[in-house]
Amino acid sequence: MAKISPFAPQALTELPVVDGVRLAACAAGIRHPGRTDLLLALFEPATTVAGVLTTSKTASAAVEWCRAHLKHGMARALVVNSGNANAFTGLRGREAVVRTAHEAADVAECLETDVYIASTGMIGEPLDPDKFVGLLSDLARDAAPDAYEAAARAIMTTDTYPKLATGKCEIDGVEITINGIAKGAGMIAPDMATMLAFLFTDAAIEPAALHEVMAPLVTDSFNAITVDSDTSTSDTALLFATGASTRHGAPRIARGDVPRLESFRACLLEVMTNLAHQIVKDGEGLSKFVTVKVTGAATKDAARVIAKSIANSPLVKTAIAGEDPNWGRVVMAVGKAGEAADRDKLAIRFGGIEVAKDGEMAPGYCEQDGAKYMKRQEIEITVDVGVGDASATIWTCDLTHDYISINADYRS
Amino acid sequence: MAKISPFAPQALTELPVVDGVRLAACAAGIRHPGRTDLLLALFEPATTVAGVLTTSKTASAAVEWCRAHLKHGMARALVVNSGNANAFTGLRGREAVVRTAHEAADVAECLETDVYIASTGMIGEPLDPDKFVGLLSDLARDAAPDAYEAAARAIMTTDTYPKLATGKCEIDGVEITINGIAKGAGMIAPDMATMLAFLFTDAAIEPAALHEVMAPLVTDSFNAITVDSDTSTSDTALLFATGASTRHGAPRIARGDVPRLESFRACLLEVMTNLAHQIVKDGEGLSKFVTVKVTGAATKDAARVIAKSIANSPLVKTAIAGEDPNWGRVVMAVGKAGEAADRDKLAIRFGGIEVAKDGEMAPGYCEQDGAKYMKRQEIEITVDVGVGDASATIWTCDLTHDYISINADYRS
Repeated sequence: MAKISPFAPQALTELPVVDGVRLAACAAGIRHPGRTDLLLALFEPATTVAGVLTTSKTASAAVEWCRAHLKHGMARALVVNSGNANAFTGLRGREAVVRTAHEAADVAECLETDVYIASTGMIGEPLDPDKFVGLLSDLARDAAPDAYEAAARAIMTTDTYPKLATGKCEIDGVEITINGIAKGAGMIAPDMATMLAFLFTDAAIEPAALHEVMAPLVTDSFNAITVDSDTSTSDTALLFATGASTRHGAPRIARGDVPRLESFRACLLEVMTNLAHQIVKDGEGLSKFVTVKVTGAATKDAARVIAKSIANSPLVKTAIAGEDPNWGRVVMAVGKAGEAADRDKLAIRFGGIEVAKDGEMAPGYCEQDGAKYMKRQEIEITVDVGVGDASATIWTCDLTHDYISINADYRS
Repeated sequence: MAKISPFAPQALTELPVVDGVRLAACAAGIRHPGRTDLLLALFEPATTVAGVLTTSKTASAAVEWCRAHLKHGMARALVVNSGNANAFTGLRGREAVVRTAHEAADVAECLETDVYIASTGMIGEPLDPDKFVGLLSDLARDAAPDAYEAAARAIMTTDTYPKLATGKCEIDGVEITINGIAKGAGMIAPDMATMLAFLFTDAAIEPAALHEVMAPLVTDSFNAITVDSDTSTSDTALLFATGASTRHGAPRIARGDVPRLESFRACLLEVMTNLAHQIVKDGEGLSKFVTVKVTGAATKDAARVIAKSIANSPLVKTAIAGEDPNWGRVVMAVGKAGEAADRDKLAIRFGGIEVAKDGEMAPGYCEQDGAKYMKRQEIEITVDVGVGDASATIWTCDLTHDYISINADYRS
């Protein structure tokens, strides 16, 4: 059993009810007997949904199902299992998804196309739907509006703590709630990796508008984190909007670019970023949380590429694990990124400490200061590449012996 | 001190003399007192040189020096130091290179522009040329035609064994020798990484032709290896051709695309590939040597990108370290590469074992067979991505606890 992350919260965030959402979870024995591994969420009629899915060329059958049905953007049920990713399982994989949708539609009394499905866990092992579809009717019966902690636990794989976040905002003066749960741990990389995130709100927003609001926010939240640069076949982030706030006078919104959504947008980004940080802070084997900021880049994309090059470098990550202020490896990672950078203007800071400036070690820098800074649990590395004024931030963790232990033994 | 690589040769390859080359090495105390860390090679007049240098945007001062002088392609001396990369050292770094070239030209009685320089080791620490330029005259005096082992040792950093290779070929019926030495270990990646390779031949080939022969061979040798996906600021591969074979009747060759160079080209590729394999086999902390072959790709570049995605995946590499036949992670790495791949035609083999076929586990595959195969010291993973007929091979190693130990403590 892996050690609990040093960043595991002392107490879990309690999530309020989102009107129109009910949840239930149970242990279906999909991989580990007795472990909560099946989640059913039910949504009231007229609930809309938007989502962002993995860019992997070997996406799972569940991801393909969601991609097809996000087009119409209506949702009544969500089924998630952990323990088996149902990825690379061929025709049987697709059949398992269809069967799950069929059974869930039955218990939710809805169309199959209003059922969303996600699976996480082992790749390449057939997922037997007989193991869990019979349990869906019990879950539907037991579904409750306050079961977020159980839901967050049901989607965990190598996560060492459940990830929950919530926020309040307003639309036209009516209070709106946004809840979110997520799982992460390994295969966390630029394109969302083995992460699942489910967000729930009582806002009333049409599907196209919901997508317009949510999708760009993924860039600076779930796509701005990396644990090990590996991208999973199953990454899924879905936002369900029940529209229940209309009962308190909130409007039903058809366009994403309207000013009345500013509070909602800011709150959604906050909840998503909160979950993204929680995912990194439970990165496999981590001992430190690292913020990499790149400034002075030619474009925002270039800043992001350079920041990811630093955040994904095994040599940078092992140096941080070893509490070694080895800023030469940061220089290396800037260089290998391939984006414009002026070596002779490059500047590096560890937190408030000026380490390098104008392409060489900063005059006042002393290694003892750097070494002392690296002993912190949260590290901030800022690099100015001296060619423009674009910037980006990426969050990551260090690469430790425990990462190797966890991943060299995952199957055994 | 790091453990010796399990792939370290029982006996070092003895290199024959290459007429026109003399070498000497000594301990200059650049970083570790008493460690051989300075190499001088001297070449007879009319020696030509070709080279391939790092693509890093933060290339070292020595790399910039070589890049400028490779344009004329004549060489009389090579100075290499280990222990300090003289990278990201600003104006002082450039001054150290100029000073080294000046002193070496003095002892070699040649133009400064005929001196080539390489430095490897710590990034960001000023290199003090006073530590070693005074030793160059002693080295010039002691330089001998058979000092390859000392030369190979002088360029080592975290390498656990010196890397030597040799081959014989012919040009117009005259026997030609190609010798090579290299260093590698960490920061080994697609674009040559912290690797230095120096090749020596008595062939007589004009600079432009020499470049035309050598540069393409780097793609399938030094650029087809990866240890940790990190690319160094100092990567340098230089090929020196003394032309001494003209004394035995060999012609002086002015064009690279001529049939009479076929034997030379094949031999050079063999020596370069041999050195490239030795670099991987001394990858930091490795326990296994891994060959990743991708077939059925749309283009050769796509095959290479997919093979590198597999070879660089921390999850694939840790699975191999754990002797876990976790082929799902190979599927993941194919998916994240972003190149065309037909998930439902994907096939994976471990050595001769058919693991997956037509997008799912192969019917006859049994995990015990896969697990047994993974216990080997040399692993071959072949993936057919089912969209075309291009292929590529990449060599790598696993990612172990020892890699973390070596890199979390490099400085201490």
